[in-house]
Amino acid sequence: MESNPSTMQEQSPCCLEITMEVHSVVPPPHKSTIQKLKTRLKETLFPDDPFRQFKGQPTKKKWVLAAQYIFPILHWGPNYNLKLFKSDIVSGVTIASLAIPQGISYAKLASLPPIVGLYSSFVPPLVYAVLGSSRDIAVGPVSIASLILGSMLTQQVSPTGDPVLFLQLAFTATFFAGFFQASLGFLSRLGFIIDFLSKATLIGFMAGAAIIVSLQQLKSLLGITHFTKKMGFIPVMTSVFHNSQEWSWQTILMGFSFLVFLLVARHVSMRRPKLFWVSAAAPLVCVILSTFLVFAFKAQHHGISVIGKLQEGLNPPSWNMLQFHGGHLGLSMKTGLVTGIISLTEGIAVGRTFASLMNYKVDGNKEMMAIGLMNMVGSSTSCYVTTGAFSRSAVNHNAGAKTAASNIVMSITVMVTLLFLMPLFHYTPKVVLGAIIVSAVVGLIDIPAAYHVWKMDKFDFIVMLCAFFGAIFISVQHGLAIAVAVSIFKILMQITRPKTVLLGKIPGTDIYRDLYHYKESVKIPGFLILSIEAPINFANSTYLNERVLRWIEEYEAEDPKMHSNSSLRFVILEMSTVSTIDTSGVSFFKELKQTMEKKGVELVLVNLVGEVMEKLQRSNEAGDFMKPDCLFLTVGEAVATLSATIKGQSSK
Amino acid sequence: MESNPSTMQEQSPCCLEITMEVHSVVPPPHKSTIQKLKTRLKETLFPDDPFRQFKGQPTKKKWVLAAQYIFPILHWGPNYNLKLFKSDIVSGVTIASLAIPQGISYAKLASLPPIVGLYSSFVPPLVYAVLGSSRDIAVGPVSIASLILGSMLTQQVSPTGDPVLFLQLAFTATFFAGFFQASLGFLSRLGFIIDFLSKATLIGFMAGAAIIVSLQQLKSLLGITHFTKKMGFIPVMTSVFHNSQEWSWQTILMGFSFLVFLLVARHVSMRRPKLFWVSAAAPLVCVILSTFLVFAFKAQHHGISVIGKLQEGLNPPSWNMLQFHGGHLGLSMKTGLVTGIISLTEGIAVGRTFASLMNYKVDGNKEMMAIGLMNMVGSSTSCYVTTGAFSRSAVNHNAGAKTAASNIVMSITVMVTLLFLMPLFHYTPKVVLGAIIVSAVVGLIDIPAAYHVWKMDKFDFIVMLCAFFGAIFISVQHGLAIAVAVSIFKILMQITRPKTVLLGKIPGTDIYRDLYHYKESVKIPGFLILSIEAPINFANSTYLNERVLRWIEEYEAEDPKMHSNSSLRFVILEMSTVSTIDTSGVSFFKELKQTMEKKGVELVLVNLVGEVMEKLQRSNEAGDFMKPDCLFLTVGEAVATLSATIKGQSSK
Repeated sequence: MESNPSTMQEQSPCCLEITMEVHSVVPPPHKSTIQKLKTRLKETLFPDDPFRQFKGQPTKKKWVLAAQYIFPILHWGPNYNLKLFKSDIVSGVTIASLAIPQGISYAKLASLPPIVGLYSSFVPPLVYAVLGSSRDIAVGPVSIASLILGSMLTQQVSPTGDPVLFLQLAFTATFFAGFFQASLGFLSRLGFIIDFLSKATLIGFMAGAAIIVSLQQLKSLLGITHFTKKMGFIPVMTSVFHNSQEWSWQTILMGFSFLVFLLVARHVSMRRPKLFWVSAAAPLVCVILSTFLVFAFKAQHHGISVIGKLQEGLNPPSWNMLQFHGGHLGLSMKTGLVTGIISLTEGIAVGRTFASLMNYKVDGNKEMMAIGLMNMVGSSTSCYVTTGAFSRSAVNHNAGAKTAASNIVMSITVMVTLLFLMPLFHYTPKVVLGAIIVSAVVGLIDIPAAYHVWKMDKFDFIVMLCAFFGAIFISVQHGLAIAVAVSIFKILMQITRPKTVLLGKIPGTDIYRDLYHYKESVKIPGFLILSIEAPINFANSTYLNERVLRWIEEYEAEDPKMHSNSSLRFVILEMSTVSTIDTSGVSFFKELKQTMEKKGVELVLVNLVGEVMEKLQRSNEAGDFMKPDCLFLTVGEAVATLSATIKGQSSK
Repeated sequence: MESNPSTMQEQSPCCLEITMEVHSVVPPPHKSTIQKLKTRLKETLFPDDPFRQFKGQPTKKKWVLAAQYIFPILHWGPNYNLKLFKSDIVSGVTIASLAIPQGISYAKLASLPPIVGLYSSFVPPLVYAVLGSSRDIAVGPVSIASLILGSMLTQQVSPTGDPVLFLQLAFTATFFAGFFQASLGFLSRLGFIIDFLSKATLIGFMAGAAIIVSLQQLKSLLGITHFTKKMGFIPVMTSVFHNSQEWSWQTILMGFSFLVFLLVARHVSMRRPKLFWVSAAAPLVCVILSTFLVFAFKAQHHGISVIGKLQEGLNPPSWNMLQFHGGHLGLSMKTGLVTGIISLTEGIAVGRTFASLMNYKVDGNKEMMAIGLMNMVGSSTSCYVTTGAFSRSAVNHNAGAKTAASNIVMSITVMVTLLFLMPLFHYTPKVVLGAIIVSAVVGLIDIPAAYHVWKMDKFDFIVMLCAFFGAIFISVQHGLAIAVAVSIFKILMQITRPKTVLLGKIPGTDIYRDLYHYKESVKIPGFLILSIEAPINFANSTYLNERVLRWIEEYEAEDPKMHSNSSLRFVILEMSTVSTIDTSGVSFFKELKQTMEKKGVELVLVNLVGEVMEKLQRSNEAGDFMKPDCLFLTVGEAVATLSATIKGQSSK
């Protein structure tokens, strides 16, 4: 296909056409099955080659590097100084002011006691500070994982009817979530599983989940006492309007006032990133203000329900509450798997986003292990599923966090709260927690991103809608499952119906390109040049066989004048794009060759990739394809050589 | 990448290097979303373009063609003559002699009354003769579909405990099988679903099913009366050895004698295709001989169990037995789906095999409709699932069948049997039916094919083993499901971890090829040339990002001497192989470009395919990629142009 002009010039400046050198096609170097397996496994499981940095280092250095790899704190700790600490203390206190009200609210979303949300903002950040490699992540409970945990567990166990069992299951699910996360990262580094959640899926799913979460808050925002336990759009709306006599105007007034305040604060911070503290401080301001209002006006007697008494003290141990047997084991494993993957996706995405923003590197697999261990530790210290939360991490970043130490600062602030400030939350009205949740999840509905998807790829948009409507009308986890299934189906469709493209010669060159795309390119009489644009395997070999034959028939049927001189003699398959074939692919070539021979047409393969060449060679019909006059390196060379053959024959 | 030598020669024979023309990259012609959708749907659903032949024909001719398309009998019927009829009558009678004993045996395999097997060899062949487009297919019940039908239904209903319900469910399942088959072919032409059963899967599955079927025959072959109802290897073997006191030596002697006879006959016919009639006639000979022996020696009183009284007469109607409501609807739909797909796969494969052997065309979708309608009609005339049977079709072909009329002859022969010869089967021993089944399914174990798969592709071999052991140890349908899941997983793995190949220049040319494969090719200092070998989508964009960055790091880390003069300046991505991208793919380029800019490296794209170019253009970052100095038609041109740029800069 290519020819270096300078070389040609040297060799034969005036008779290039005749002496054009044909480059020999060679089989690839031999590799045993074991070697191939090793290469493939390495590419699959260790694409980032984590042990590269250890190569060629002295043993002691290797130990240091390994320790730093496992505990990134050893990497940044020794160089820690007062200046960094000043930045971290500001950002740490800022995110603590956000983490405390959000922790209480999200625990409620998961149908757990509010204090569990605070426990979960104390231990996990400490663990992450030691193990995590991101500087910007702020660790704690997040809305969607909380929602899913709650909704999956309430399907079988009532949080009010049997609160101890519910708590046990929540901690067990957290343990499994952590275990799956750490396994994905460590045991087999199968982190690619989260790659199957495409951006389009996530946009639709997050928007759907945000709406479901917001609808749930109608309970607190309207002050309804008899509310459905279901999550779907229809049961919730039915419940809201059937219980309209329970609506409490005091609650509604208070709730919507604070909601408007929070949304305005959010808007201000979004317009001016320097004013990040406005939205960061707003939830705490709301909590303080509303608590004060309730306390001053004794509003709890006027239809406004409050949190009530909260226990003081640090996280009690909970390893004795983990249940690895009994009838609910399947439920907690399933819940752990789903919440684990969802929260991992969020955590990794947050880490990557800020890493690429600040141009440092986050090792995805390392992060999975950190998040997983953090949840396993959390599950035995009364914490539920936590991860890197998007909104809090953004605040952390804007507040100037420089190292994971900001998580330690946050953790200490939460500790102080747990030890001394719990009685202050007694009169905090539930409605304000609802408002905090709604204002937090509103940001998950990303309309510009949805529009971008619509503009870029209509099929991705359909996947997004599946996730969105599935989440709203069926259930959050089913919406996700449907969207993943649809996106995998799309990939399979692409494989089953790969494109075959007719190539033509761009005049005045030796370049062959898509005839449809490059309008100036022309067909070569007597040749049909096709490019197959996918690996050939069982799922498409039948289709490709039919399609290639159809191309031939169409060629023959088409405008007979063009072929008056030369009927179809050669079918050239440009194979650069066929990266691999399987047994069915080998049969495809065999059958195609046989059919062609019956038609008196010769099959020529161009630019076989190593693996494909090797497999064709190994099959019994090797001789047929490996003849030098059926195998070329470029389409240009094939056409030139074969044209010469035709001329030679006709001149005889 | 290519440059036509003759043109160059004309333009500038002596200073090619400087004036080398760079070909402009143009965006593809515009197409609206609707047009694209139409093209894609057409390629997906009508890859064979069935309406091509109607184009440009007068209206009357169109009607005739349409009628011939729907009823192929109208195509060959008018030219039918005595010579063809002679061939068809020989082959028709031959396959009837095979169909009668096999029909009775397979019905037993499906736990149905023996006569249903004969009914199923009467009506469906007539329907197929009118609708089918293959000349060689012989229609009737087949072993694997019979086994699956029986085993799926007996899971919920006992064929001895409630025979009427069992029969109703079998007919209903047959109706659904036909309905699914016809839908696959007609409604949406989604016939590609059967493409997911790869050859490797089928080899393993068929061998496993053959073993399960043979094990079931141990009941008749050993004369055991208390036999397990389960299908798995372990329960059957347990049952065989726990009931060894029930073994009857008379039965064993008779069974194994006939089995040896049948296997020898099969072997003779396989060695000499001209002696096809030996294996074709052997089952009938066995039936006649064994019936005579039993009758003569009154062997039914000596431990040999016989079929017993069979009803005379043609198929009774059974449409009143179809059940489209009630608790078993799900079961019959599921059974119909599985047996429908399995028998369709066999039927289509048989049709295609003989069509390609005799060089005529079989329209797969048309065949699906024919088989589907045949089963729907069959279900209302007391027939169960039928299809084109491999063994009988081979006999049919070897016996010289010329048209589908041989099916009509077979059908009439079966009819005569049903009307007048049924009492003759009263004393036919069950053991001989077992021997007939075993000798028929032995052919499904294809060891050379399995060895070929092992040689060609180790992963396909694993898929085969999954299907094989799954069928033997779990259940036939689960084995199939596991194998399909594993083969889809393999495709997904290929998509998730696509190959990225480092390209080098082959000296003395302008050709860039895999550095590892073509050892003589060399790197160009300052350039990193990569080829990405898969469509870029959500499942691999993260991986590709990491992998490309690793290539860059490796380039920079590698032998610094080589880069002493020129550090990495350009990363060239050869994109011929990227046939399509989605939203995540677009983000991939955006992120990669940003990362590269921070490193001071420029990203250059070569030979973008139409669709990819369009999507990149549509994204907000269009300007970045669509600049002419970032976009080239061939790697050669890109390197030449960019090298000139570097030189220009350094000489300033």
